[in-house]
Amino acid sequence: MQLISSVDRKARDKALEILRSKFSELVRQIINGENPTIVIPKRVLSNTIYDEERKLLVLGPSKLSRSFLDVKEVRKFMQTTLMAGIIYEALSNNEYPTIRDLFYRGKHTIRYRGINGKLLEENTWDEQKESDGIIRDIEVYINMLREDLLILSKEKGKVVGNMKIKSGDDIIDLSKMGHGAYSIEPTPDLIEFLDVDAEHVLIVEKDAVFQQLHRAGFWRKYKSLLITSAGQPDRATRRFVRRLSDELKLPIYIITDSDPYGWYIYSVFKIGSITLSYESERLATPSLKFLGVMPSDIFGSSSLNKKPYLSESERRNYIIKAKERDIKRARELLNYKWFQENRWIHEINLFLDKKAKLEIEALTSKGLKFLMDEYVPRKIESGDWIS
Amino acid sequence: MQLISSVDRKARDKALEILRSKFSELVRQIINGENPTIVIPKRVLSNTIYDEERKLLVLGPSKLSRSFLDVKEVRKFMQTTLMAGIIYEALSNNEYPTIRDLFYRGKHTIRYRGINGKLLEENTWDEQKESDGIIRDIEVYINMLREDLLILSKEKGKVVGNMKIKSGDDIIDLSKMGHGAYSIEPTPDLIEFLDVDAEHVLIVEKDAVFQQLHRAGFWRKYKSLLITSAGQPDRATRRFVRRLSDELKLPIYIITDSDPYGWYIYSVFKIGSITLSYESERLATPSLKFLGVMPSDIFGSSSLNKKPYLSESERRNYIIKAKERDIKRARELLNYKWFQENRWIHEINLFLDKKAKLEIEALTSKGLKFLMDEYVPRKIESGDWIS
Repeated sequence: MQLISSVDRKARDKALEILRSKFSELVRQIINGENPTIVIPKRVLSNTIYDEERKLLVLGPSKLSRSFLDVKEVRKFMQTTLMAGIIYEALSNNEYPTIRDLFYRGKHTIRYRGINGKLLEENTWDEQKESDGIIRDIEVYINMLREDLLILSKEKGKVVGNMKIKSGDDIIDLSKMGHGAYSIEPTPDLIEFLDVDAEHVLIVEKDAVFQQLHRAGFWRKYKSLLITSAGQPDRATRRFVRRLSDELKLPIYIITDSDPYGWYIYSVFKIGSITLSYESERLATPSLKFLGVMPSDIFGSSSLNKKPYLSESERRNYIIKAKERDIKRARELLNYKWFQENRWIHEINLFLDKKAKLEIEALTSKGLKFLMDEYVPRKIESGDWIS
Repeated sequence: MQLISSVDRKARDKALEILRSKFSELVRQIINGENPTIVIPKRVLSNTIYDEERKLLVLGPSKLSRSFLDVKEVRKFMQTTLMAGIIYEALSNNEYPTIRDLFYRGKHTIRYRGINGKLLEENTWDEQKESDGIIRDIEVYINMLREDLLILSKEKGKVVGNMKIKSGDDIIDLSKMGHGAYSIEPTPDLIEFLDVDAEHVLIVEKDAVFQQLHRAGFWRKYKSLLITSAGQPDRATRRFVRRLSDELKLPIYIITDSDPYGWYIYSVFKIGSITLSYESERLATPSLKFLGVMPSDIFGSSSLNKKPYLSESERRNYIIKAKERDIKRARELLNYKWFQENRWIHEINLFLDKKAKLEIEALTSKGLKFLMDEYVPRKIESGDWIS
């Protein structure tokens, strides 16, 4: 009985080889009597750059070095080699650790004698924050995502549509999922896209709205690949979407609630997150188009010559008054370079002016047909999205 | 092109008929000059009974009546008929509302003239809490779950294993999901179980641990249906598990973190939740067996003649000190009748004594093989679970 997929076995061999070759540099240094040193791009805000051309957050040129023979750096050096060793061992043993596992696996107390002969103790790490940072350093150092090292994580992204994929050793027809959906694997780089018969990709922030559109046959009728991130997207869903963009060259749209939290979800998909900018190179989807819900969908806009999708009485019943923290968050968004485009400035100012939020569910309340057969297709056809 | 499944069309017709026949009683009353009245079992704590024999929370015999010609009840009467009408309309229009939609759809202001001719206003409801309560009343009144009315919700349960199911018009092979998984539909009563070749069901509280066991081929090797609730289970996952228990007659085990929160997840699957006891009749799985993680797995137990699965040094590295609120929660669990069994009392007292929590991930840190090939199979074989 074949327990583990052949795809995983290949991925494992590749990861072992890269890890071995990158870290054997340290062995070479030791043999040559040099100070073992690891040089890693700095993952700090001051070394995070918004690349205007590629429309991505990327790491800048600053590097840090960790060497064994430096008292200030030796703890981090120890942690880095310890973690690399644990990951290597997990790969060799056909395991699929999570970052939580890796924290536990490495957590122990090192006992040693100081120069004066006194017995000293030092914990490898105390909190997962520390071991997580080390995993990120290793990702940057070896230029592989943790998923390539078969480190798994919780995954909540789902997809349905006219596409077949190969995952593991199976071929899966995403148009034959019944009322359920295909839950994307945590290592989406191992997926192969096979037959695709779709004209666009639609990401829906909310799982419950995804369920409704799926059930009503939206993706069949409009030749769509329908995806939900179920809230803030996880890494696998982001990477999956990026690959759809790169490889299928389909337009990709997203609908979120009309509030700063929803717009931030769009921005994480598109640009990446500021604290984890090193991932953006492979997880962000710069081509992503924001379809809605926009404040101008709710109120219309005379400068855009746009009529609202909601009537006065619908607005009265559906709108949620923005809270102080929504206002604050909206102002923060305006500070990000990638929101400093005319259309976004217009929309966010309209939000600040009206102080009004709207959930996607308010649109399905007008009738699922309205969302499915009017709002989404009309906005796509007329190009009423922000790219 | 067939947009909506034939299964949904049938479910819709059935729901429309039941809703019509139940509420047409009101029409009959009006025609006969009676005071239109709805009689509904009371959904309150004082009417919630733990049925010791069936090991379920159920509603007791108390009923409330809502009539149109009673000033104290007329508002709730209005809300009930309003909501029933909205649901009926959604069913007729081939829609799949969520409870959030239904809140929005019914939310408006009723304007009317009082006895003195003054213009008065009344909101149908202001908060979703109110409309949700009305939906529950309707479920109890017509003795159908909201899912039978094609009211959808966010769904996070996943399944893989040697089983084929029919969902909608598709047949899905749950052993051919690659590295991904099948995301259960929000209306699991519409699923048909086809070929099953499994000897037990294993529910894993944590999605990331589910991913690991899935990937390592656990369900293949041990003929298991592997399910994750991804934390606190939603209604669909609970109903799906209950149906597996009723229809396949397979033993069903669950593993959660070793802490009061994890044990509560077990209890929601098994008994139901106290505030929503009316659902338990169809959502709870009284046959569910708690496999672990138990405090006696961590520390052993001389009275149970049981050796611990963790060594002294593993305990030192893996255990998390219980917080004050964990202790408080554990004491609360001891007050529930269904935790008042010798073995549970023993385990919870061991927890209170050691004040130690443990995550499932600590077990995978000992090696995924340990969890997969030692801990789970040995506990199942030796019957070391709490039923």
